[in-house]
Amino acid sequence: MAERLGKYTIILNSHPSVTGFAAVVGKTEGEGPLKDEFDFVFEDDTLGEASFEKAESALQKEAVTRALSKAGKTPDEVDFSLAGDLLNQCIGSSFGLRSLNMPFIGLYGACSTMALSLGLASMLVDCGAARVTVASTSSHFCSAERQFRLPLEYGGQRTPTSQRTATAAGASVVEKKQSGKPTVDAVTIGRITDLGIKDANNMGAAMAPAAANTIADFLKDTSSSPSDFDMILTGDLGKVGSRLLCELLQKDRGIDIESVHADCGLLLYDAEKQDVHAGGSGCGCGASVLNSYIMRRLESGELSRVLFVATGALMSPTSSLQGESIPSIAHAVLLSKPT
Amino acid sequence: MAERLGKYTIILNSHPSVTGFAAVVGKTEGEGPLKDEFDFVFEDDTLGEASFEKAESALQKEAVTRALSKAGKTPDEVDFSLAGDLLNQCIGSSFGLRSLNMPFIGLYGACSTMALSLGLASMLVDCGAARVTVASTSSHFCSAERQFRLPLEYGGQRTPTSQRTATAAGASVVEKKQSGKPTVDAVTIGRITDLGIKDANNMGAAMAPAAANTIADFLKDTSSSPSDFDMILTGDLGKVGSRLLCELLQKDRGIDIESVHADCGLLLYDAEKQDVHAGGSGCGCGASVLNSYIMRRLESGELSRVLFVATGALMSPTSSLQGESIPSIAHAVLLSKPT
Repeated sequence: MAERLGKYTIILNSHPSVTGFAAVVGKTEGEGPLKDEFDFVFEDDTLGEASFEKAESALQKEAVTRALSKAGKTPDEVDFSLAGDLLNQCIGSSFGLRSLNMPFIGLYGACSTMALSLGLASMLVDCGAARVTVASTSSHFCSAERQFRLPLEYGGQRTPTSQRTATAAGASVVEKKQSGKPTVDAVTIGRITDLGIKDANNMGAAMAPAAANTIADFLKDTSSSPSDFDMILTGDLGKVGSRLLCELLQKDRGIDIESVHADCGLLLYDAEKQDVHAGGSGCGCGASVLNSYIMRRLESGELSRVLFVATGALMSPTSSLQGESIPSIAHAVLLSKPT
Repeated sequence: MAERLGKYTIILNSHPSVTGFAAVVGKTEGEGPLKDEFDFVFEDDTLGEASFEKAESALQKEAVTRALSKAGKTPDEVDFSLAGDLLNQCIGSSFGLRSLNMPFIGLYGACSTMALSLGLASMLVDCGAARVTVASTSSHFCSAERQFRLPLEYGGQRTPTSQRTATAAGASVVEKKQSGKPTVDAVTIGRITDLGIKDANNMGAAMAPAAANTIADFLKDTSSSPSDFDMILTGDLGKVGSRLLCELLQKDRGIDIESVHADCGLLLYDAEKQDVHAGGSGCGCGASVLNSYIMRRLESGELSRVLFVATGALMSPTSSLQGESIPSIAHAVLLSKPT
């Protein structure tokens, strides 16, 4: 039975386990510092498909199929698939997963989707509504560029604050607690936060206040402090957003997370060598780092407690053209090593 | 504690209640047969906003605010807001609800969103993860036309099989069982179904097979027959899709739902007088009919048991341009009169 703690946090007393996880990435991501952590690196970012959108769908299907296989499950055994992505009408997920015939809960959380899908999946397993769930998301540099910014062929210059949308997908299978498997212990669903940032080339700045809110909410609800975690891992704030997050928490609330903070957008690429400006972003960024490097170290016990806080910018090109600011959100999921 | 019944259905043993509901619509919808059922009819479809997208956001906020007020709740008391819509990146929901500061679970289910949000909200209340939830969605004829089809200014002709996207929003507040309030008793999350229909002007045909699957799953899981319900209410299949649904269930599975079947897309407009071709569609169509006409009659006891099955077409203009067929989905929620 789920139990609410404080105003925003849900404690999962049954400690559902991540029984399988997988991350698959594109060529550039496979040349970064985490290259040996992924389940598969596609040397051709089209995956042999006729469009970038179809490639993204194939990428997400690959991550889900591999995660299920590692958990020893077939799609037919899945009670709920929870997924979403950045593409208009979330076609990365719906087209990617349509052939698997799993009951499908479509989500939209922009780049926060991995935490949203994993958190919800864990709540539904905890309460007995599901036995086997799979949470997934994806993003693709080429489909995102042409949808959110400019066609690649235009060769536009990017600002130093911009981030590279990762060509990557990740999936976690969540079931009842199993020995030897990392557990999901708590979830905080974030609130939409909008401090009026309008620069769509500086998503990190737009999302940092949402991350600050959710982290502060979680720490308050659970009466914990940053030193209680091996890592507070944000999804894709990048260089600019990560600095802002630490500042916001320090100045506004006296919370110092600097020594335990890491960001998937900074872990995925070598920012110096790979020309990715302020770091990585996209749903697949957090999803692929979490479902490789992080989950492996939780499973081995090298990491004990990780607070995964994926952040999302909830704007669209239309809202930006209409002069709107960028509402953001961050969801937190507490993961622990096997007990 | 949620209990799984059969392969796809979740029984909510605590019978969460819909403690408040509201539906607000545009001018055309306010001239239809349900005109006296809605909480408010906006005579000006712009709602005084500078764009159709902002008008849709304002519409959804209005529905949520009114539903909460009717439940005697403030946004601050809401544990989860669950919402989504048809606009790219679901900006109808995120911009509409950003000022209310509620923990936000973003969904994407296209026109199935009202059943998805209501079903998930009820599961989360049933299991104790939330005390107060609000499920909502919206659509707007003008924002949908220009995003999915053509700018209104073009004056394109519509095919006889096409449906009119409703300018409408609906919201349900779900809490623990309360006397005098309709209850949510069971939920079936649908599977993505794709029989290869490619005509984006015939959504009813694309969505009917998904509805047939979910209805058949629900009836099988619960060992019930159509006569056990006052109404099996689909979201927005319209004239063409409704006929197909009845045929599919009859021919493929020997299930005759004709005498209890109704469709929100056929209830919302007077198809003869209002020039809406095959009927209404859009997330707001099912949401506004459910959260007015239907909920009122459940609350009064005039209706005893309604199986609400909202359907969604999970395509995008991009996927259609790339030659893809239209994957669809349908989620079912069983509603009962107060006990």
